Amino acid sequence: MLYIIGLGLGDERDITLRGLDAVKKCEKEKLYGKPIILADREMVEEKVDNILSEAHGSDVAFLVVGDPFGATTHTDLVVRAKTLGVDVKVVHNASVMNAIGICGLQLYRYGETVSIPFFTKTWRPDSFYEKIQRNRNLGLHTLCLLDIRVKEPTLESLCRGRKQYEPPRYMTINTAIEQLLEIEQKHGESAYDEDTDCVGFARLGSEDRMIVAGTMRQLRIVDFGKPLHCLVIVGKTHPVEEEMLEFYKIGSENSEQKGKGIA
Amino acid sequence: MLYIIGLGLGDERDITLRGLDAVKKCEKEKLYGKPIILADREMVEEKVDNILSEAHGSDVAFLVVGDPFGATTHTDLVVRAKTLGVDVKVVHNASVMNAIGICGLQLYRYGETVSIPFFTKTWRPDSFYEKIQRNRNLGLHTLCLLDIRVKEPTLESLCRGRKQYEPPRYMTINTAIEQLLEIEQKHGESAYDEDTDCVGFARLGSEDRMIVAGTMRQLRIVDFGKPLHCLVIVGKTHPVEEEMLEFYKIGSENSEQKGKGIA
Repeated sequence: MLYIIGLGLGDERDITLRGLDAVKKCEKEKLYGKPIILADREMVEEKVDNILSEAHGSDVAFLVVGDPFGATTHTDLVVRAKTLGVDVKVVHNASVMNAIGICGLQLYRYGETVSIPFFTKTWRPDSFYEKIQRNRNLGLHTLCLLDIRVKEPTLESLCRGRKQYEPPRYMTINTAIEQLLEIEQKHGESAYDEDTDCVGFARLGSEDRMIVAGTMRQLRIVDFGKPLHCLVIVGKTHPVEEEMLEFYKIGSENSEQKGKGIA
Repeated sequence: MLYIIGLGLGDERDITLRGLDAVKKCEKEKLYGKPIILADREMVEEKVDNILSEAHGSDVAFLVVGDPFGATTHTDLVVRAKTLGVDVKVVHNASVMNAIGICGLQLYRYGETVSIPFFTKTWRPDSFYEKIQRNRNLGLHTLCLLDIRVKEPTLESLCRGRKQYEPPRYMTINTAIEQLLEIEQKHGESAYDEDTDCVGFARLGSEDRMIVAGTMRQLRIVDFGKPLHCLVIVGKTHPVEEEMLEFYKIGSENSEQKGKGIA
């Protein structure tokens, strides 16, 4: 049996009792009193057959931050397992896709989610622009997932065929806004501008979580601290949404600018 | 302190360790070894001040199925608490909005979520039609949340001023498809038809969960069993999405038509 277990967003206390039961049945884990193997993307994508062959004869738990199906990688893992005849059990948990509900913007008022990739000198993809524009024309909110670069091989190492990795990088809300505004300037179709309302989230689900609502101009210079960050571009709001957003606004007495308030 | 704790989707084993810690600190709960008060919508919406006044002096846990911010009601509870100066802590969990990821359709490829209300003889609202049409034109998937009518006062009781309630009703996938097709026939704009691919979900997150992929015509007559049900109308699919959907297709060897497979 292959268990795919969502760990939620904060720390090891965010696993569910059902998830912990499954972990305890399995042979391959640490934390929770079992040995653990840290599976990076390379392992999951390229050496998955080792994991799956063990799951044929015994119980193996595959622990995933958030909910198991936030990423295509885990969908692919299930497809491979099922193709090999390995039974799969999934234990759900919170993911960023629903935890952003905490800011008061209703989840059913979101349009398509976009990803903001790190720009390089030569690679500045902007397919997010059209999607944000579409959402905003419909009055919908947009969740922007910000780039994470972990265990990315250096260009040099790719050329030499010997694996060396870049240091990990996590996009900040500040960088995301810089890039968003650059692309707005390039297209000039007023999908959004410096005065567009947004909500910045850092470390969602953790005790030191930080949520600040403000315009792009305001959030651009807020220090959100450690990763992970994500950003919501606000669409048309209803009164109950506005009431809740008030608590997170820059300068508001109740704001969570220092990680206080709702935690 | 007011804790608002997501319970997840299955049963009491789906609470997180963090959630259970919070419950144990509180004075008002059953299950988990504490007395519990069943708070229906009426209580939450009308008698919330009683809950909040207790949270001023002691720890009160408010347990919510799924994630706390799936519904406007809980946003309103937080606003009231903060206004009264009560501290609020939120413990996230899985909700239907992310757990549907299990069928393989990627969460970032969903458009706006719609709600399908029970039609009556005189009330047949169809604002969902335009939204589904828009999502489909963009190639996006649509999550349809199906109506739940629990503790709804009867029309008669409203007239007489004495509260009597209708028996609880939960919309099935079959009814949802009937209503969807009725509205398509009324509008005639081919937003979707009997051959449109869908995925039906029953009891997501439970051991006896059931997931079936098929056309509206096919799913219309599938018996999904007990509530809760929800329905996804499939947009444009990518190969990895299709591979995963195959496992859930009607007639597929691997399908979960009897609640087997991935659980």
